[in-house]
This record gives sequence, C-alpha cells and structure tokens, in this order.
Amino acid sequence: MALIVQKFGGTSVGSVKRIAQVADKIKKFQDAGNHLVVVLSAMSGETNRLLNLAKAISGDEQPLPRELDVILSTGEQVTIALLAIALNKRSVPAVSYTGSQVSILTDSAYTKARILRIDDRKIRTDLQAGRVVVVAGFQGMDEQGNITTLGRGGSDTTGVALAAALKADECQIYTDVDGVYTTDPRVVSAAQRMDKITFEEMLEMASLGSKVLQIRAVEFAGKYSVPLRVLHSFKEGPGTLITIDEEESMEQPIISGIAFNRDEAKLTIRGVPDTPGVAFKILGPISGANIEVDMIVQNVSHDNTTDFTFTIHRNEYDAAELILQNTASKISAREVIGDIKIAKVSIVGVGMRSHAGVASRMFEVLAKEGINIQMISTSEIKVSVVIEEKYLELAVRTLHTAFKQDAPVQQCE
Amino acid sequence: MALIVQKFGGTSVGSVKRIAQVADKIKKFQDAGNHLVVVLSAMSGETNRLLNLAKAISGDEQPLPRELDVILSTGEQVTIALLAIALNKRSVPAVSYTGSQVSILTDSAYTKARILRIDDRKIRTDLQAGRVVVVAGFQGMDEQGNITTLGRGGSDTTGVALAAALKADECQIYTDVDGVYTTDPRVVSAAQRMDKITFEEMLEMASLGSKVLQIRAVEFAGKYSVPLRVLHSFKEGPGTLITIDEEESMEQPIISGIAFNRDEAKLTIRGVPDTPGVAFKILGPISGANIEVDMIVQNVSHDNTTDFTFTIHRNEYDAAELILQNTASKISAREVIGDIKIAKVSIVGVGMRSHAGVASRMFEVLAKEGINIQMISTSEIKVSVVIEEKYLELAVRTLHTAFKQDAPVQQCE
Repeated sequence: MALIVQKFGGTSVGSVKRIAQVADKIKKFQDAGNHLVVVLSAMSGETNRLLNLAKAISGDEQPLPRELDVILSTGEQVTIALLAIALNKRSVPAVSYTGSQVSILTDSAYTKARILRIDDRKIRTDLQAGRVVVVAGFQGMDEQGNITTLGRGGSDTTGVALAAALKADECQIYTDVDGVYTTDPRVVSAAQRMDKITFEEMLEMASLGSKVLQIRAVEFAGKYSVPLRVLHSFKEGPGTLITIDEEESMEQPIISGIAFNRDEAKLTIRGVPDTPGVAFKILGPISGANIEVDMIVQNVSHDNTTDFTFTIHRNEYDAAELILQNTASKISAREVIGDIKIAKVSIVGVGMRSHAGVASRMFEVLAKEGINIQMISTSEIKVSVVIEEKYLELAVRTLHTAFKQDAPVQQCE
Repeated sequence: MALIVQKFGGTSVGSVKRIAQVADKIKKFQDAGNHLVVVLSAMSGETNRLLNLAKAISGDEQPLPRELDVILSTGEQVTIALLAIALNKRSVPAVSYTGSQVSILTDSAYTKARILRIDDRKIRTDLQAGRVVVVAGFQGMDEQGNITTLGRGGSDTTGVALAAALKADECQIYTDVDGVYTTDPRVVSAAQRMDKITFEEMLEMASLGSKVLQIRAVEFAGKYSVPLRVLHSFKEGPGTLITIDEEESMEQPIISGIAFNRDEAKLTIRGVPDTPGVAFKILGPISGANIEVDMIVQNVSHDNTTDFTFTIHRNEYDAAELILQNTASKISAREVIGDIKIAKVSIVGVGMRSHAGVASRMFEVLAKEGINIQMISTSEIKVSVVIEEKYLELAVRTLHTAFKQDAPVQQCE
C-alpha cells in the first residue's frame, strides 16, 4: 500500500465537470489500495479574478500584501471543498484542509512565503481512518496565525513539501502535458517523452524555459529526495519520473534534453578599465533595480580594458540599458551595445559529466549549419549558447538529431 | 472614546465602489476618535454563487455540510481583506481576521453553528495599537479547528457576539433601511421611524415579518444587554436604537409598532375526541416533518370533541394537510379544513403590559371596518389576529391610525 501525494493544477480543476473527472481518477487510486493526499490549485482564472478585485480597491497603490494573501487563499479553499464533496458523493471518504488547518507553517513573507515545517499529525490520523486528505495548495500560515501564500506555482511546492513531511512514496504533479520531453515537441516533431530524468537535469531544463514544473518544487524535491512524477491530468500514461538515479548514470545517454529560451536580451559594455570590483560596479545597479541577470560573460582583458556581457529578460532591456549607460559614463567605459534578437539554446544531461567533447560536438553541429555562437556558458551538466534568434528552430532541431536520434552511437564514443 | 462594533451587510459591500464608500464612512468614525471593530458579510450574490457551485458538484445529493462551510466562508474572507486594503489606502491602519483567526469558537453544527465563546485578546491588542479590526461575519471554527458557518443572517449575530465579548458601547447594524418603522411604509405612508424600541418589542416585530434584523442577533443582544442600533449604510441619520429601557417605559406609547405577515396558511382539524395527549398526537407528526408551526388555537370542547387550528408557512400547506388528514383518520376526527388566503396582523408594545383594553380596542377598530377575526393569539406585549388576506392593508392602515397617529390620546387613557 503506497502513500501518494497528487497535485492538480488550475486547469485540471477549472470547472465543476473537471473536478468531477479528478474525483473519478482519485477514486481509482483509492480503490487500488493507495493512501492519498491531494493538493489543489484554485480554479483557473480565479486567482486573477481575486487579484483584480484587490487591484480595483487599491487603485494606483499596491494592495497590502497581508490582505492580498487573505483574498488569494480563498481560491484554493473553494476547490478543496468542492473536490471533497465530489469524492464523498462517490463513496470515497474525504476531508478538506486549508493551509492553516494542517499547519503548513511558513515565514511571514506575504505573497512569496517559504514553508518552514508541516504538522502532519492531522493528515496521518485521517489517512489511517481511510480518508483521502485534500489540502489547499499555495498557502500556509505564519507563527502568528496570519494567512500567507507561496507565490505563483506554489501549489507544486505544497505538494512536494507534504510528500517530504509524510515520506510519501511518490509526489505526482498532474498537468496539461503527459511528461517532460527531450525538447519542445512544437519545434521538433521527433521530441520524445522521457521516462526518467534526474533532479539536476530537470532543474536545468526548467530554468531554461521548459515550464512544466516550478523550479522551487524541483529543488525542494531534490533536497528531500521526493520522487516526483509529471503526468497528464486526463490522459493515461506513465509520465516522467524525476528522481535521484546515480547508480544508473552509466547507462544514461550523454544528454537528456535540449532546452531553449527566446525571452532574453543581451547587453555588452565595452572598453571597461579592468580594475578589481568592476564587475560589481556594473551589475550592482542592475540587480539593485530588481532586474534578474542570467548569463554573464567577461572576456580576458586586452590593453587593460575588458568587455562585459550579460543577458536579461527582454521586457527589462530598456531599463537595463539606461542603467548601463549611466554606469558606463561613471566608470569611463567605451560604449554600451545590445541586442534583443537573441535566443539561448542549451543541452542538458548528467551524462556529459563523464564525457569529454560534448561542448565541442555541439559547437561543431552548429557551425556546420552556419550558426554563429555569440556567448557560451557551461555548468557541469549543461552547455548554453546564445545565437541569433532567427536560427533558434534550426539549432534545436539539428542538435536534437545529433544528440538524441543517434543516442546509441553517442554512447559508444 | 467609544468602542463601536459596526456590521455591514452584503449590499453595503456589494461592489468595489460600495466597499470604498464603507471605508470612507469608517474613516470618519475613526477620525472622531472611536475604537472600531467592523463585521462584514460576503458581497451580495457571492454566497449564492458559492452555494450553486457546491450544488452543481453534489448533484441530487445535499453537499456535505462540513465542506459547504469551507466554501461559503470564503465569501466574507474576500470582503474583509478588500475593506482592510481600502482603509489602509485611506491611512486608516486596519487588519482583517477570519472567524478562525480571532477564535470565534462555535459548536460543530455545520451550516447553523452557535457561537460558544470569543477570544478577544488579539482584537484588544489591535484596538490598543489604533487599528480598525475587520472581522468576517457568519463564520467561526469548532474545537477541532473545523470551519463553521452560523447560517443565513449570521453576520448580525457575529456583530452582537463581538460587541458582547468586547463590552462595546454600541453595536451598529448597517442595512438598506434607515431604521425600524412603526409598520411597513409601503403599506402605510404615515409609518414613522422609531428612535427607540426595546429588545422584546423588536423580537416580536422581527418574528412577525419586519425583516430588518435577524431574530437570533436581537435575542443575543438582549441577553447580553448590547445596545443595538439599526442604521442606513449610505444615508445619514440616527437610525433606531434597540435597548433595555425599563425606566422610561412609563413614558412609552402603549404600542410601538404594527407587524404583519402574509406568508402563512391555516389548518383546522375538527371534531377531535378531547382526550389527554391529543394536541401532541396532532402536532407531533407535523413538527416531525420539520414543518414549523406558528399560532396554535384550541377551543373549549363541546360534546367531548374539540377543534384544533394552527398556522404554518404557506409553502408547507400541502405537506401539512396530507399529514393532518392522516392523523384525522387515526384519531377519528371529523374533518380537516384549511385556508391559504389568510394574513396575520399584530400590535406590539411593552406599554400594553400595564394597559388593559388594548386587545379589545384592536378588535373594535377591526370590527368597525367589517373585518372578521378568524384566530386570536396574545402574549404579554403582543396581540395577533388572523384575518382574510384581502383585508390586510386596510387592517394595518386602520390600526396604525388608531394606535399611532393619536398616540398622545392613547397614553392618557
């Protein structure tokens, strides 16, 4: 008898009909003899509706974060009770709990709270009594009993945190895709669903734009070794298991997936006097303006000056450029140049740790197609390049063919 | 510096614009130096929307009461936070609390819970710090931390219970009328707003169909001697104060108001063998079917048989008649007759305690207009009669003229 935590997102519970379908699905798992804890998001659209109410009342100011959380947390409170009603109607004993009721204790950082601990006694008692426990995702309470929310996508984190606290056998995240793919199937028709992927690989895939799971939830799952499975809410299938899998790594293909991102823009400050602390002088004002920086490349210096390039979200290009121009005149740099028509392509895989030549093969494949590489950044299990945006699809398709289609050949290299 | 509990109903917080108006109003009270606790209902229509969701998912079954309360309680949770945001925007420090958060402890009778006690420490701390405390009406939690609701109109009860726990100087109930009237102004244009009325009178008026306040809230206020004031949400005015007022009763007019009700129907079982326990044999099956009985009249027996008449809500006439026919054959009664075209008119006033002849004057006034009285029922501060429905308006107008317009004369009788 397994203990499974299942999380269903907003579109999976987006209507009364959908909630009924979810109830049918849960009944099957219950009938198969599993202990079940179900985590739900708000009905799709509901969080935005509530947010708009709060914005309408606060006018040009930001709504008070504490009160915003009181409002937003009602979304999940409705879906958990609706599902509990639907389950009981199907003769599946079920009980709903808000984040406060099962003591999902968080810090007091309203709208982006972090889970500190979970009191699992109530849930264990219900599970022992044969009840399905339905918990509101995305929310908790702080030490003073104030309602908090975990920020967008926080329901995944609630699911993983509950699975960790209960030492569940698996945490299943139900979504609108049937698993994690080797790359985006809309770009490469040969993209394949992976049966397994490691936490590290998933983190690199997620942060690079494969938006199946919240990064935070994957980190959490990795930290507490919670086996995480991504599945489709309404289609049958094994999905993709995200797990620690060290002993099998010898058999793994070199790379597991190809991720890409076309939301970024590039800024370069040239002719920077190469003195200690110059990197902070350049990036300090950028992060001070709450602009997130992704790739950072600094070339070796030449004539005591250096070039410094970084990428940011495309939406923040104008703001970042203004700040950088300001910095350039302060530190007597030569010029600021930038480009928003770029794309980032990455190959990800724990297998590349033990295989030399993955990066060079990637560069070779791109060169053969005449694709110029503008920036390179590497980690232990990832190589990312920035290229001109118009070559994105070509690059992804070519790399997928080179690394995935002929995977057996690659392993024999 | 007064401590005031203010309760605003669903239409008063029915839109973002209305909530902003309520915030403006509260700011004035706060600026005048009062300590304020504000109790809110859900936005008008919201409770029904939530109820319909629950009904849609439960189909032909009743939604599980525990889960229904989890859903319904979200309505107030949204309005309290919206008001807290609006107040803070107006530089009025304010904080919102759900029923659970301020420990409005109830029994576990979901959908119709009763308040057991309130832990007022959190509220007192906030009031001391100069904050307006905004509390969700209609809801609480039981000893086990389950969310409960108090049933329709429960927000009035929350307001009174908080006022009692905090020993507030006044509990103000804001509504869509500017006070309690001597009778319905739509029927009698000369109806007047009363400045004051006693709890007992208000109870009789409320239960007789003057739907300004929930009976339960008035009982609660009377029990704990909480001065209760009914006011209009958006019109200025003193409203009506409901209070204990023994010392002033000598100056009070004999009757304070005229109430009426056209929702009732009448059933008579005739020729009932007059044996001990026969009243229970007749009414037991009726109340067993959850049908509420209002007036009950049994005439003196004649030839060892008696007639037994009672009134019920008109919607339950068919069900009650069926039960009564069944009873009639069991106890060998002669026949069952009934009438749905009736109306009840009552005169209410603590003044009538010390004045003989109020009932006979009432009968005289009605007789002069040719209105036949079908049933009579009296209490210490009320005389009710059942008449043919078509005479209702005439009866109310005539009685109002007789008892209220010439009130000074009445007092000298």
